[in-house]
Amino acid sequence: MSFNHFDDRGQAIMVDVSAKQPTLRTATAAAKVAMEPKTLADLLAGRTTKGDVLGVARVAGIAAAKKTPELIPLSHPLAIHHAAIDFETDPEAGVITIKATVRAFERTGVEMEAMTSAAVTALTIYDMCKGTDKGITIGDIRLLFKEGGKSGTWRREEPA
Amino acid sequence: MSFNHFDDRGQAIMVDVSAKQPTLRTATAAAKVAMEPKTLADLLAGRTTKGDVLGVARVAGIAAAKKTPELIPLSHPLAIHHAAIDFETDPEAGVITIKATVRAFERTGVEMEAMTSAAVTALTIYDMCKGTDKGITIGDIRLLFKEGGKSGTWRREEPA
Amino acid sequence: MSFNHFDDRGQAIMVDVSAKQPTLRTATAAAKVAMEPKTLADLLAGRTTKGDVLGVARVAGIAAAKKTPELIPLSHPLAIHHAAIDFETDPEAGVITIKATVRAFERTGVEMEAMTSAAVTALTIYDMCKGTDKGITIGDIRLLFKEGGKSGTWRREEPA
Amino acid sequence: MSFNHFDDRGQAIMVDVSAKQPTLRTATAAAKVAMEPKTLADLLAGRTTKGDVLGVARVAGIAAAKKTPELIPLSHPLAIHHAAIDFETDPEAGVITIKATVRAFERTGVEMEAMTSAAVTALTIYDMCKGTDKGITIGDIRLLFKEGGKSGTWRREEPA
Amino acid sequence: MSFNHFDDRGQAIMVDVSAKQPTLRTATAAAKVAMEPKTLADLLAGRTTKGDVLGVARVAGIAAAKKTPELIPLSHPLAIHHAAIDFETDPEAGVITIKATVRAFERTGVEMEAMTSAAVTALTIYDMCKGTDKGITIGDIRLLFKEGGKSGTWRREEPA
Amino acid sequence: MSFNHFDDRGQAIMVDVSAKQPTLRTATAAAKVAMEPKTLADLLAGRTTKGDVLGVARVAGIAAAKKTPELIPLSHPLAIHHAAIDFETDPEAGVITIKATVRAFERTGVEMEAMTSAAVTALTIYDMCKGTDKGITIGDIRLLFKEGGKSGTWRREEPA
Repeated sequence: MSFNHFDDRGQAIMVDVSAKQPTLRTATAAAKVAMEPKTLADLLAGRTTKGDVLGVARVAGIAAAKKTPELIPLSHPLAIHHAAIDFETDPEAGVITIKATVRAFERTGVEMEAMTSAAVTALTIYDMCKGTDKGITIGDIRLLFKEGGKSGTWRREEPA
Repeated sequence: MSFNHFDDRGQAIMVDVSAKQPTLRTATAAAKVAMEPKTLADLLAGRTTKGDVLGVARVAGIAAAKKTPELIPLSHPLAIHHAAIDFETDPEAGVITIKATVRAFERTGVEMEAMTSAAVTALTIYDMCKGTDKGITIGDIRLLFKEGGKSGTWRREEPA
Repeated sequence: MSFNHFDDRGQAIMVDVSAKQPTLRTATAAAKVAMEPKTLADLLAGRTTKGDVLGVARVAGIAAAKKTPELIPLSHPLAIHHAAIDFETDPEAGVITIKATVRAFERTGVEMEAMTSAAVTALTIYDMCKGTDKGITIGDIRLLFKEGGKSGTWRREEPA
Repeated sequence: MSFNHFDDRGQAIMVDVSAKQPTLRTATAAAKVAMEPKTLADLLAGRTTKGDVLGVARVAGIAAAKKTPELIPLSHPLAIHHAAIDFETDPEAGVITIKATVRAFERTGVEMEAMTSAAVTALTIYDMCKGTDKGITIGDIRLLFKEGGKSGTWRREEPA
Repeated sequence: MSFNHFDDRGQAIMVDVSAKQPTLRTATAAAKVAMEPKTLADLLAGRTTKGDVLGVARVAGIAAAKKTPELIPLSHPLAIHHAAIDFETDPEAGVITIKATVRAFERTGVEMEAMTSAAVTALTIYDMCKGTDKGITIGDIRLLFKEGGKSGTWRREEPA
Repeated sequence: MSFNHFDDRGQAIMVDVSAKQPTLRTATAAAKVAMEPKTLADLLAGRTTKGDVLGVARVAGIAAAKKTPELIPLSHPLAIHHAAIDFETDPEAGVITIKATVRAFERTGVEMEAMTSAAVTALTIYDMCKGTDKGITIGDIRLLFKEGGKSGTWRREEPA
């Protein structure tokens, strides 16, 4: 097996996608931010009075989707057509679940845009909370769903 | 409790650090990339012939440390003085552990630079492996160690 | 009424334009830089001997049109196909009027590219003149004209 | 008179500030966004339910302060130490007044950072409101205050 | 004769390409890095043990192809579809020859992307070798080949 | 011999300069652009009427000095304090010689900033002239002079 970001001499390349037809591509990626339940409680209680941590993180995540080609060296520059970030919170466990969805009519998939968007959203939450809770962990950054292109639809099988 | 990236009216700010004295700051963050053991075996076997996935990811991680202020909206721009990325691999489990260390003589800490560097290193590995293994998960992005500044040294307590 | 950069829960999004057909889009925006007439006189007299302030500002404005998606968080990344900056000067009033025109064959309008280009052109003039005239004011940044897309042509009605 | 961003042959330069000593620099700039009073009323009424336009614009303005050296060609790269954006609204007139304050311990002033931050905050408000009110005008982008450096403190004299 | 990056008043513009049809564009550019033969021998001998200078430079060159519109003010933003860097080395002469190939289905050519990619690859090699050999020279950055668009195919005639 | 951008296991790093004291650093690099004498004659004849190619290129070169840390992966982010570009032209030979000088009070040298600035200035000239003269070659990109830091002053020995 070989990795397709390298040519047959093992040299890194940006894979040639010029012969592909653009299709509608969608990808959703997730990430989790695990903190002290007390930190999450404070974060949620103060959203409209103490500061909207999730609102700032969402803007960062959307902006990061556009920055993906600058961060991932062999990725293709893409003009994305949609980006959205959703949060779910589990106050007892102290966990914020991020879902980032990106869409584009393009020659190549938007998985990296969704993954990067979820990761930077999580990092931005960490940034704002680290003053009170350095032990916060970001995990489970993973693709949930992709659609479009020759390989078609893929959905992560996860235990309910 | 309130988060220090917001003023007393709850408005997002870049915290004023102009009155702080620069000190030597170091931070180490980690991340894990969990893939099929077969994918990791191929990746490791082909490093010098099929393509150096970890070498590309390391360059991306070092470059990302410099891009942190562009990604994390309320973070301070920093001129970092050192960045390094180490990998450990567990072939049986299919896990790559990334450690990113950043150092700077600055008024504010380099935790976000280390966390961002580890995260982008992991995302870049994902990018190169996703063609054969979409289910790869990035996790355990966390601060291991920080040093410098008024709050001094902090080290994550982890089970051996 | 609601703003279309937010979903029905009030969350900021990059609006989905993937289903739109690309059309030819043009937008022209203007800005005014008001300075001491003496400053403008010096600026105009010295263009070929003391330094071409407007030439530098024009290059900055064209480059800024390309940077719009990095500056405006919820804007779509666009591959613009044309950008031009015109200046008119009123030496008696000490006013430089900037007109920035941007064109692209795209799914979404180029109004923000034209507005950003005009604004950065003006800021760059300010930068070069502020050493002698800190009181300079930038104003009247506004859309003059747009064309293309479903909403068609729009032209600002202004008193002659 | 000549402009100090050009050498004695009229060539654009980044002025040499290497011999200057760093001092604490502060600058405050303002901008106004004038819209239909109805648009502003909707914007203010829906902040917590329809979408936080000003919250998104504030994040954009802070991020833009960091991007100033990329936008203004002859400006010096600066590591800013503080940035904050305040809004005042005049519902009857339909006007949002933006004040952007930037601080840094640096060899050169932060006027351009404050001006750029105010301008991009205003452009971001325009972006989110243009769907319902294309005629919005951005004006009165001007320095209100600066402190630090050899030229010392400067404060705009304005009619009360 | 006039240069087409300027309008008929001599003002710099981004040329309007919106009326052009996209075609498949390819460009190959070359660059040479001339160093002490001893430096090149060390570089080649240590690729898998002392550090992979050419591997790092290749990643930098591919990333630079994507950054071209940010570097060259009047160039069009392009979504490139392929980038690859090849090296040939002449140990006796101490010369590394770089060939950078870029491809895109676009309205305008990718010559600047290939030229910039070759130049930045060379600069990155210089960066890593300058500690031992400051006298290194980068030369012969030139277009070898272009294809696509109205002007069709062009190939540099070079002595064998 | 080993290259200092790699650690003792051959892994790419950003070298740790945090223990170094800042000193005043200056570097001058040069580049040559060789074109048809006819192209250069047109370029020079039309500077104030047909378009100021060298003026645009100078702005691009100064901006590029600031972008160096984004282009050269293992380079340190630097806050440069001065940048200037000079041109000399040899109409008979059709050669433009570029000299780029950069200065900073920093822990590490500014050689890469000067080299990158000279290279991007040359590439920008190429961009504007390639429509009439594709065969233009950029060469002799080389350090002429550096000063500051532990290794002190270095000056290229060149035949008169």
